[in-house]
Amino acid sequence: MTQKRKFGIGLIGSGFMGKSHALGFATARRVFDLPFEIDLALLADINATLADRAARALGFRRSTGDWRDLLAAPEVDAIDITTPNTLHHEMALAAIAAGKHVYCEKPLAPTAAQAKEMVDAAEAAGLATQVGFNYLKNPMVALAKQIIVSGEIGEIRTFRGIHAEDYMADPQAPWIWRLDPAGGGGALADIGSHILATARHLVGPISSLMADVQTLIRERPVSTGVAESRAVEVDDVARIFVRFANGASGTLEANWTAMGRKMQHDFEIYGSKGAILFTQERLNELQVYYAEDRTGRRGFRTVFAAPEHEPYGAFCVAPGHQIGFNDLKAIEVRDFLEAVAGGSPKGPDFREGYEIQRLVQLAYRSSAEKRWLDV
Amino acid sequence: MTQKRKFGIGLIGSGFMGKSHALGFATARRVFDLPFEIDLALLADINATLADRAARALGFRRSTGDWRDLLAAPEVDAIDITTPNTLHHEMALAAIAAGKHVYCEKPLAPTAAQAKEMVDAAEAAGLATQVGFNYLKNPMVALAKQIIVSGEIGEIRTFRGIHAEDYMADPQAPWIWRLDPAGGGGALADIGSHILATARHLVGPISSLMADVQTLIRERPVSTGVAESRAVEVDDVARIFVRFANGASGTLEANWTAMGRKMQHDFEIYGSKGAILFTQERLNELQVYYAEDRTGRRGFRTVFAAPEHEPYGAFCVAPGHQIGFNDLKAIEVRDFLEAVAGGSPKGPDFREGYEIQRLVQLAYRSSAEKRWLDV
Amino acid sequence: MTQKRKFGIGLIGSGFMGKSHALGFATARRVFDLPFEIDLALLADINATLADRAARALGFRRSTGDWRDLLAAPEVDAIDITTPNTLHHEMALAAIAAGKHVYCEKPLAPTAAQAKEMVDAAEAAGLATQVGFNYLKNPMVALAKQIIVSGEIGEIRTFRGIHAEDYMADPQAPWIWRLDPAGGGGALADIGSHILATARHLVGPISSLMADVQTLIRERPVSTGVAESRAVEVDDVARIFVRFANGASGTLEANWTAMGRKMQHDFEIYGSKGAILFTQERLNELQVYYAEDRTGRRGFRTVFAAPEHEPYGAFCVAPGHQIGFNDLKAIEVRDFLEAVAGGSPKGPDFREGYEIQRLVQLAYRSSAEKRWLDV
Amino acid sequence: MTQKRKFGIGLIGSGFMGKSHALGFATARRVFDLPFEIDLALLADINATLADRAARALGFRRSTGDWRDLLAAPEVDAIDITTPNTLHHEMALAAIAAGKHVYCEKPLAPTAAQAKEMVDAAEAAGLATQVGFNYLKNPMVALAKQIIVSGEIGEIRTFRGIHAEDYMADPQAPWIWRLDPAGGGGALADIGSHILATARHLVGPISSLMADVQTLIRERPVSTGVAESRAVEVDDVARIFVRFANGASGTLEANWTAMGRKMQHDFEIYGSKGAILFTQERLNELQVYYAEDRTGRRGFRTVFAAPEHEPYGAFCVAPGHQIGFNDLKAIEVRDFLEAVAGGSPKGPDFREGYEIQRLVQLAYRSSAEKRWLDV
Repeated sequence: MTQKRKFGIGLIGSGFMGKSHALGFATARRVFDLPFEIDLALLADINATLADRAARALGFRRSTGDWRDLLAAPEVDAIDITTPNTLHHEMALAAIAAGKHVYCEKPLAPTAAQAKEMVDAAEAAGLATQVGFNYLKNPMVALAKQIIVSGEIGEIRTFRGIHAEDYMADPQAPWIWRLDPAGGGGALADIGSHILATARHLVGPISSLMADVQTLIRERPVSTGVAESRAVEVDDVARIFVRFANGASGTLEANWTAMGRKMQHDFEIYGSKGAILFTQERLNELQVYYAEDRTGRRGFRTVFAAPEHEPYGAFCVAPGHQIGFNDLKAIEVRDFLEAVAGGSPKGPDFREGYEIQRLVQLAYRSSAEKRWLDV
Repeated sequence: MTQKRKFGIGLIGSGFMGKSHALGFATARRVFDLPFEIDLALLADINATLADRAARALGFRRSTGDWRDLLAAPEVDAIDITTPNTLHHEMALAAIAAGKHVYCEKPLAPTAAQAKEMVDAAEAAGLATQVGFNYLKNPMVALAKQIIVSGEIGEIRTFRGIHAEDYMADPQAPWIWRLDPAGGGGALADIGSHILATARHLVGPISSLMADVQTLIRERPVSTGVAESRAVEVDDVARIFVRFANGASGTLEANWTAMGRKMQHDFEIYGSKGAILFTQERLNELQVYYAEDRTGRRGFRTVFAAPEHEPYGAFCVAPGHQIGFNDLKAIEVRDFLEAVAGGSPKGPDFREGYEIQRLVQLAYRSSAEKRWLDV
Repeated sequence: MTQKRKFGIGLIGSGFMGKSHALGFATARRVFDLPFEIDLALLADINATLADRAARALGFRRSTGDWRDLLAAPEVDAIDITTPNTLHHEMALAAIAAGKHVYCEKPLAPTAAQAKEMVDAAEAAGLATQVGFNYLKNPMVALAKQIIVSGEIGEIRTFRGIHAEDYMADPQAPWIWRLDPAGGGGALADIGSHILATARHLVGPISSLMADVQTLIRERPVSTGVAESRAVEVDDVARIFVRFANGASGTLEANWTAMGRKMQHDFEIYGSKGAILFTQERLNELQVYYAEDRTGRRGFRTVFAAPEHEPYGAFCVAPGHQIGFNDLKAIEVRDFLEAVAGGSPKGPDFREGYEIQRLVQLAYRSSAEKRWLDV
Repeated sequence: MTQKRKFGIGLIGSGFMGKSHALGFATARRVFDLPFEIDLALLADINATLADRAARALGFRRSTGDWRDLLAAPEVDAIDITTPNTLHHEMALAAIAAGKHVYCEKPLAPTAAQAKEMVDAAEAAGLATQVGFNYLKNPMVALAKQIIVSGEIGEIRTFRGIHAEDYMADPQAPWIWRLDPAGGGGALADIGSHILATARHLVGPISSLMADVQTLIRERPVSTGVAESRAVEVDDVARIFVRFANGASGTLEANWTAMGRKMQHDFEIYGSKGAILFTQERLNELQVYYAEDRTGRRGFRTVFAAPEHEPYGAFCVAPGHQIGFNDLKAIEVRDFLEAVAGGSPKGPDFREGYEIQRLVQLAYRSSAEKRWLDV
């Protein structure tokens, strides 16, 4: 066993996603044979105290209250951005300028134009990039893709995808940064981007779309329990008709007011010889139907994640024991590091993040113009 | 117990739906206290032999090979039409002209114009009408409506409905009458009308829509195992964005090529205080979520049909024992007879059948013109 | 089409089960090609008024307040007994003495000795008998049996069966006739007999057993809202270890205090090559697992009842539309009439009812003696 | 933020469970505010090469091929034993003698006598102990316990528990160490101990039991693909009737040949006012039924794990995102360290491990003697 090269991580942000990334690094290094030895080198947050506390908690060697310190740190090979998406553009461009690989949360940027600049910069610099569409990393989604690619369910005809949660369902939930139009949109940009990513990952490029986005809760308290309200300018729900380049068609939906839904990242894919059903609320299961099963014995099979579904086995040698949400981040970390090491990148990289952002932006335009748009 | 007046039924057709209606009559008279004594008087089918055999099997007193014989039969109070929908218009108008009440399978007619003539004739004659959108008769759908109307889940915000089956999924399945454009359309007209009916029943009138219909299998063998093929001119899949008059919005879908789906008449309804989920594949269950349930104990409740869900108790005094598809027809029969008897009609009557047909037609136009249309 | 011989039915009882049988006859004659033309000849109930009303409602030609009138009625070919089980013995013996075929609700009799007399009398007289263990009539149970018999899931190793409901779960639910020890027992006799019937039907004879029965609610109000209470002497829950003659082993349970359970007649059957799961709460589904399915694609298939699952197709030509509880009775009616007509009887006949009753009685003895008993 | 005291871990074993523990430590330190700073000090495995590789992979500072090296290492505060259970006794006693706290995989030891020695030694030495019945650590199991303890579902009446998998279902699966009677038994000892732990955790002490254990596959190949076979002397399936000290009763089952089952650690708990259902195959869900919900709206609620279900929120701030199997180990690690730090121990400690082992042993005796035994 040769000594691996150290690979230093500089993390910006230590909230929901920052912590999830930190867990991803910690787990990835234990379950996978990574191309590098991960060094949790430096953690930045909005002030030194917070950053220090987070660094201790999450196992980083050093901390800083100024994210720009990461740019100059020689031990930092890659910068991992888990801040709100309005900050991604500036940080990523700076990271790339400093020669760092970039791992960035989704959505990539508020606008496709910004995202494009980020792609161009990274590609010009020859740096690896990764965007945190973590649901794509699920072994059950990999299984879905394998089933599709192998032709097991025939030619794909139709897709139905949704990403619905209820974290914005309460009209008394106060106005927050997610509602700022500067972020590029509402439910569609925030969670609709996930289902767009899944649709592209599994079925392929979208060639045209027609969208309908809507604000359901038109004003919200400026803060909890306060009478003063502020207008909401972004969408609560978005629906999209799509045509895929391969001839398939479908619908996508994003909804952050779907009362009772906690993580309904669901898809249904119908082919000429079978079908696949999935819900992220039961992320360790995939349902598969084969028309060729014999008469009287046909039905959707509930397949539980098992070692034969790569890379589940890295986490657990026994089937049905289940991986969790944070484990998806560990797979994402592995894929990022393999991309850095020059393997065939599994993505989604910045280019893919940009393609998704283009679709988000196009969907908003389609809805505003009330017409189909080519991609 | 006073003797009830006899009410004679003349049934046209004895196929899938004809048999289901006959079972509906036989069951309805045993489980409900109907306003009339049902007399299964006369059954018509395309020839005398077939009609005779069906009459014996289904318990009708007489039979005929000519449906027009029903018009003149004095013992026939209502004509029940279960033939393909291209025949509904002529038969219903003749029945109305003969002073008979009319119970007709869905969709009401191939065109909204024909449906309108049928409504006008029936209303002018003061006759009762019923259209066989039987899924509306499910006690669990009645429960959903009760939950919505009572305000238990607050203001309705979004609706997602689908009616998907796979009976046309096999490209080798031969061309059949259902594919004849003269019938008014394909999947949308045939099964999409069901989900439109459900959407209107539960959420109310639709004020505007934008549709996308598509033919997925563009040609089919002229008959089983034959090389010669015939072009398919009607839709296999249809998706619709809708705005309801009450401000809610949603999507509807019809798909008869959804491999693996047998009876996916599903809906999800999200309100400001809760949500409802339903699938016809488990027709004796409704899932309900209440945001007001206390923290840590919230979740969709799986409610099984029980005697407290009217009229389940008429079929069975014990909960969870389950009613079947044909039992829905028995409820429809009851509602029709109560409408005849002058009670407040539960519908859907011809007017409602026409409204649904207008939506079907409008959706085809919207898709062709690629734009939103007001209803 | 030749004219069929009329076959007169004399029904005793018009409560829950009486009505269900009446629906069974009405449906059976419409969906099956029966060997006879059913004549709903005579209905008996505890007084003339009640019987008259029931006869009108359920479609019987005549009624009587004295069940013994059925014995002498020449138009009655078979007597159908749906009264409480303490009355079965006397009624069935009288029916047999009168030369009538007998269709009797379960459990056959309070004691195995009584049941044996009934078997002996019926067999000596050469009359057909049927016992109402209706869950055996489900096309999905027939599918389970077909899967087992065909060897598809290999040699059967273990069985887990339960029949749980909650109709006695409330301690304030008053004392009722079901709690009278004269009826032969409590939950085990009442609903445990169903799961014993299923176990024998699917896996075969039981060779030895060890039981544990228990009274959970030791006293109940004498009637609703009354302070006075009465001791409960029968079991609320029963558990049984079993060995089957074919070498398989298993557990059975009956529980009528299982809060939240409405119709949990469930079984799990594990074989050397696969497994089957079923719950009566979703009676139109069967889950099947095949170990031979290829790696990575194994999982329980949810098979929906479809025309290929005999006799579902008699009720509906389309899959997934679902039959209901009362439809199971229609299948039972068919099987009874075919047994009368001399076909190979599908049962369960009185002999089978007696075998089940023996097991019930043996289980009570095993629990009292706290030891294994051979059957 | 004060500097925490370092707490050194010495891990023995790096297989399935060793890796899971290592992940547990890595995650626990990032998600919880632990009383100590974890130091992954020393890892032992059966030889130096294997141990070295594992130490690098799992993030331990040093490694050794001799587990006894851990005893003398001053930086090791606790020894974590993940070896086969025949080795637990010797290792734990040595660890205790060396003054180390002990964290040990389940089952605690092959015999209750050995387990008792381990308890006595640990208690005499005043050291903290933890046994790896990790399913108890699930926030959903904690929720179940909270619901029971609070009285929300009333007095507990009945329990049904099972732990079934299929890893020994194939008769061609070769003889392995798990089948060695020296290990203390088969399916009951291996996985039945899990469901015994759950039963005790949720319902309380068992006062008497009656068991039935059975070997289903009586011989197996000595190794894969070899004709020579070896007799199997341990149980494949075990069923137990139990009486709890609080008056509740129930059944437990263990089965490692249940074809199709991957992680069926399921329980059903029925109380006088409600019920709870759980399956480990969907570990982030709990189903709860309240009899007091209003008529027509009662049903099992599917509650998804959420931040309000402690300690789910430590892993993820959003509901429904799901934790995985290895995360349960992180919670176990936290509980162990808190016990070390002198908080009220959440267990299961060695005493509890011993109580479970006594039940395992008693169940074997009960089955052999075919009689009920008091605990």
